[in-house]
Amino acid sequence: MDKIKVGIVNVTGYAGIELARLLLKHPDVDLVSGTGRSAAGQKLADVFPHLTGVAELTVESELGNVDFAFVAMPHRESALEVMKLMERGIKVVDISADFRLSNPDDYNEWYGFTHPSPELLDKAVYGLPELYRKDIASANLVANPGCYPTSAILAMAPVVKNGIVEEDIIIDSKSGVSGAGRTLALGSHYSEANENTSAYALKGHRHLPEIVQELTYIGGEAVNVTFVPHLVPMTRGILSTCYASLTSEYISHDNVQEEITAIYREFYKDEPFVKVVDASPHTKNVWGSNMCHVYPFADVRTGRLIVVSCIDNLVKGAAGQAIQNMNIMSGFAEVSGLEAPPIYP
Amino acid sequence: MDKIKVGIVNVTGYAGIELARLLLKHPDVDLVSGTGRSAAGQKLADVFPHLTGVAELTVESELGNVDFAFVAMPHRESALEVMKLMERGIKVVDISADFRLSNPDDYNEWYGFTHPSPELLDKAVYGLPELYRKDIASANLVANPGCYPTSAILAMAPVVKNGIVEEDIIIDSKSGVSGAGRTLALGSHYSEANENTSAYALKGHRHLPEIVQELTYIGGEAVNVTFVPHLVPMTRGILSTCYASLTSEYISHDNVQEEITAIYREFYKDEPFVKVVDASPHTKNVWGSNMCHVYPFADVRTGRLIVVSCIDNLVKGAAGQAIQNMNIMSGFAEVSGLEAPPIYP
Amino acid sequence: MDKIKVGIVNVTGYAGIELARLLLKHPDVDLVSGTGRSAAGQKLADVFPHLTGVAELTVESELGNVDFAFVAMPHRESALEVMKLMERGIKVVDISADFRLSNPDDYNEWYGFTHPSPELLDKAVYGLPELYRKDIASANLVANPGCYPTSAILAMAPVVKNGIVEEDIIIDSKSGVSGAGRTLALGSHYSEANENTSAYALKGHRHLPEIVQELTYIGGEAVNVTFVPHLVPMTRGILSTCYASLTSEYISHDNVQEEITAIYREFYKDEPFVKVVDASPHTKNVWGSNMCHVYPFADVRTGRLIVVSCIDNLVKGAAGQAIQNMNIMSGFAEVSGLEAPPIYP
Amino acid sequence: MDKIKVGIVNVTGYAGIELARLLLKHPDVDLVSGTGRSAAGQKLADVFPHLTGVAELTVESELGNVDFAFVAMPHRESALEVMKLMERGIKVVDISADFRLSNPDDYNEWYGFTHPSPELLDKAVYGLPELYRKDIASANLVANPGCYPTSAILAMAPVVKNGIVEEDIIIDSKSGVSGAGRTLALGSHYSEANENTSAYALKGHRHLPEIVQELTYIGGEAVNVTFVPHLVPMTRGILSTCYASLTSEYISHDNVQEEITAIYREFYKDEPFVKVVDASPHTKNVWGSNMCHVYPFADVRTGRLIVVSCIDNLVKGAAGQAIQNMNIMSGFAEVSGLEAPPIYP
Repeated sequence: MDKIKVGIVNVTGYAGIELARLLLKHPDVDLVSGTGRSAAGQKLADVFPHLTGVAELTVESELGNVDFAFVAMPHRESALEVMKLMERGIKVVDISADFRLSNPDDYNEWYGFTHPSPELLDKAVYGLPELYRKDIASANLVANPGCYPTSAILAMAPVVKNGIVEEDIIIDSKSGVSGAGRTLALGSHYSEANENTSAYALKGHRHLPEIVQELTYIGGEAVNVTFVPHLVPMTRGILSTCYASLTSEYISHDNVQEEITAIYREFYKDEPFVKVVDASPHTKNVWGSNMCHVYPFADVRTGRLIVVSCIDNLVKGAAGQAIQNMNIMSGFAEVSGLEAPPIYP
Repeated sequence: MDKIKVGIVNVTGYAGIELARLLLKHPDVDLVSGTGRSAAGQKLADVFPHLTGVAELTVESELGNVDFAFVAMPHRESALEVMKLMERGIKVVDISADFRLSNPDDYNEWYGFTHPSPELLDKAVYGLPELYRKDIASANLVANPGCYPTSAILAMAPVVKNGIVEEDIIIDSKSGVSGAGRTLALGSHYSEANENTSAYALKGHRHLPEIVQELTYIGGEAVNVTFVPHLVPMTRGILSTCYASLTSEYISHDNVQEEITAIYREFYKDEPFVKVVDASPHTKNVWGSNMCHVYPFADVRTGRLIVVSCIDNLVKGAAGQAIQNMNIMSGFAEVSGLEAPPIYP
Repeated sequence: MDKIKVGIVNVTGYAGIELARLLLKHPDVDLVSGTGRSAAGQKLADVFPHLTGVAELTVESELGNVDFAFVAMPHRESALEVMKLMERGIKVVDISADFRLSNPDDYNEWYGFTHPSPELLDKAVYGLPELYRKDIASANLVANPGCYPTSAILAMAPVVKNGIVEEDIIIDSKSGVSGAGRTLALGSHYSEANENTSAYALKGHRHLPEIVQELTYIGGEAVNVTFVPHLVPMTRGILSTCYASLTSEYISHDNVQEEITAIYREFYKDEPFVKVVDASPHTKNVWGSNMCHVYPFADVRTGRLIVVSCIDNLVKGAAGQAIQNMNIMSGFAEVSGLEAPPIYP
Repeated sequence: MDKIKVGIVNVTGYAGIELARLLLKHPDVDLVSGTGRSAAGQKLADVFPHLTGVAELTVESELGNVDFAFVAMPHRESALEVMKLMERGIKVVDISADFRLSNPDDYNEWYGFTHPSPELLDKAVYGLPELYRKDIASANLVANPGCYPTSAILAMAPVVKNGIVEEDIIIDSKSGVSGAGRTLALGSHYSEANENTSAYALKGHRHLPEIVQELTYIGGEAVNVTFVPHLVPMTRGILSTCYASLTSEYISHDNVQEEITAIYREFYKDEPFVKVVDASPHTKNVWGSNMCHVYPFADVRTGRLIVVSCIDNLVKGAAGQAIQNMNIMSGFAEVSGLEAPPIYP
């Protein structure tokens, strides 16, 4: 199969530059163009010296001639870029939130803008391959999931689908600081974030409606989700600890733990990037890779299910999953360009 | 008031050496003795160079002549030390878990040993001054609370006491690595713990029965607690995020948030070391101090109460609280020796 | 002695807020005023929540009525503030570089501005108490040394003064990120600074002329200093590793190491805040304190002297030393308000 | 070309497991065997969960049937393993120091043991491909350089070879904590190493004779090297800052900086893994890769050359360079299996 030409709109954010790192060594594509406002005209490797000797690209102000595009703009701006690309007939994976929510009103409520192309919301596919692989394969526009939703949905999908937990779900997520992006902010200032842990967005994080939408869809009925994100002092990684009550009939089973482990193993049995593990996972064990480790634990004492999942927020939570989606949309091997193991220690 | 002579059994662990740091500048006491097995005979400042020019003490193998003792041994060994000290008529704050649980059977179940002096369990007072100040004042033996329980109980006590949350409580705690102690272990090895977050002890952490015991006592009825501790890459600090459903009658109130904030402010209104704050707190904001910051948030959308609390695990979670207890037991000002503000950044 | 009223110009930077932390518990002063541009009108404890329950102050736009002032403005702006305060007859410790260099031309060369009050440069005393205690005692204006110069000068002063090293001196310093201040910058962005070490300012850091000026003055002849600062991923601390050749006559002595250690011990024998230690020091061992640990090592194999020193850049390297200067200028005990031991671990 | 079968003696240390990570995806080899004492019999992915779904290997107690072996044992033990492998006719890259020094007496002096096979020292080639590529190609035994020497020698080789610096060389190196290995030690305990920087081994680090041997060989005359290693709080990375005086005739040249940059560019012009960069490099920019970034800076004010180099201590400083050596010894493309770019941020 011939290589396709791919481009990145906003290559200079953390998601964009992580896409570049992965695409530069992807066997099926040529990264031919990357845009970035303030860095336009500079060599990519001068702005990002880790690509010295790796990337020859110069940052552009407009995307060049490509077959496939990744858009990693701030919300609303992403939608405008995607609209232009769709008109040019270019397939797109959008890294922003602009096509994740199917109800246009959610954009007014959660993001504070009126969606500029609500008709595209119907055409966009939510890009979680473990749930929507077939739809992704035939899509022209894929909305790449948020980092927190990826970890939360993969953690809870098997039991929500099987209807063995009550509708009250608590998701307590811990994220590395790169999730806050490359834009300067006091909360991401080294001396503030180092040696510090905090919860934030208790009044409602923008990833909440995304989690609710998907878990509702999977389970076929309303879920009542509490989601509290936390910032922990590391660069990469998300660990989500999810809590739900097992249904009363289910909890009386004899071998709850074995049954639940079996449900998870069955659900993910063919997945190259989701591994059901036997011990509580560490974010370090997926660092730098597209892997998601999931560990379900039935606490029979309290009747609760606890599921711990972890991902690298910039890979499975952003750039890696976007490439996984591109692979599916383009007929490449799904793991193409994503096979490097996690880096430890 | 004359200064009293105090000693530390096992000054060479993190709790012990933190006690030394604080006691060396405490205006009402003289730290005259500290024991430590492997370091016995060495100058304390040679083993712990941060005390160069501060401490003249030599580590001993047996505690010298003291009026008051802190015991910071591993569990079971602590009990044996405490028994000897009590016989000598010395008042004790025990930092270990050996006198926290009132039911001796709990030691068999959770700690794997038969308690050597169950009769002392009745005499020991649980040393959380915000709840038991009066009992502490007249006690000869105080069991210093665990670090996780301190953060969890202070977070939930006001609402459990007021009966406005259901009995199902989830406590998701994040701790710095010093909580695992100074004993070498792979999980505390720098390259393993750095850039890593993980949950542990899902099957039941030893601090769970302590949390259950106290919340049950406060509320007067059984609670169903799920407690999941996490390790995050920082040296000091615990942040506990606690979840409970508000009772259905309570959630219908008009100004739930205001009412709950008022309950917390009333509960802690005279407390020197617990502050009810207006925004989600950061562990960094109590770093190095005996402070606890508590933030209750009523999520009316889901009917849940979320309470975030944070402490320095080695101060309010160990050495600082122990000194607070000593102050109360000895008739000193409760804040004596504990007034240094948190260190930021 | 009555308490004096002190104020801080620009309390909202890292040096300013560290001054506040220390002054709020200083037994001889009342912190009555602190200014800050963007935060003016807010309660200090709202901007800096670690001071919750500690500080009642509201940030002001103009300094109130004080007996003594600390100025912690950016360079050039500091000089303008100091001029106004001197006219009001208020004693000042200036934290900026504006009065450290005695030659006004150096400001044009190294800081890019013409000094607005060169006449004050003669009156200002360089505030390194270990060298200029007497002059500080009678000064109205003290220029608080830079963080790097404090560590480097204290490391080299004894041997430069004794003339036993050649004039070529290399200072390789490693600093925590708080040294770069609270102003947002990509280099201080968490995900950039974490898990990263780099050298910077090879073409000449602004602290170089300060180091050269002082070592020249101490030794009485020109020194040829190479100074390379580095950024390491921690919040606080500077470790300076200094290299100089021992004079050829000196290196032939039999007990070079013992002689040099003796020189250092004699030089610092009465110093409360400089400790000559017997093993290579760790920044952690002075963390949060006004201590400086110095370790001289004679490498007889190569004929070189290696001196390692460490300080907390925000305490002995800024706020703590400023208070030490104030203590001397005001006739307080030199250690007043600065006796808290370093915090470990 | 057929794949070769490779094995790792002691796969369970940090160098060994990093070899596994890289070899598992190497296109020209099959990793068929890995030994480890305490973990023998366990699945590699159970001991190192980051390899879940990547490695099928079980840890063995004896190396299986291989064509090529990496030995990563502690010193002296490595030599014994290598001797056995050489007898079996297996080509070896030894990661330990046991074959780096050509003078057997150095092992007595620096490592405290008598070398068990001094005759092999003559046959072993020092595995720095940038200097000894040809010899490596025909070698059966390659001694993989130490991490510090790799960074120091690559920094200084061009100017030492060209004879434009004096013989006095100072190397101030800063290393991440993984350099201290996976064996538990107080200095690598998280709470001790975090938020801490220190110098160590001032009396002489074991990598010093290796640096001296190689720089002497390159320059053809004796060098007088001072080498001080430092520990900084990060997992991976070494930054070496090297200082040497430019010869007096050379410093008088007009365009010293340009000339020196040209010398470095010429020296490394065909090197895939050494890049001469235009700004002071960051360890983060080579993180996880086999790259070395080198930045020479001529400080004309002092007549000194400052060279800053950085590598990932576990890749170019250990496992990556070992694979680079294997590639050369086996006739594979030198970059085979080593092309993944550094991971940022």
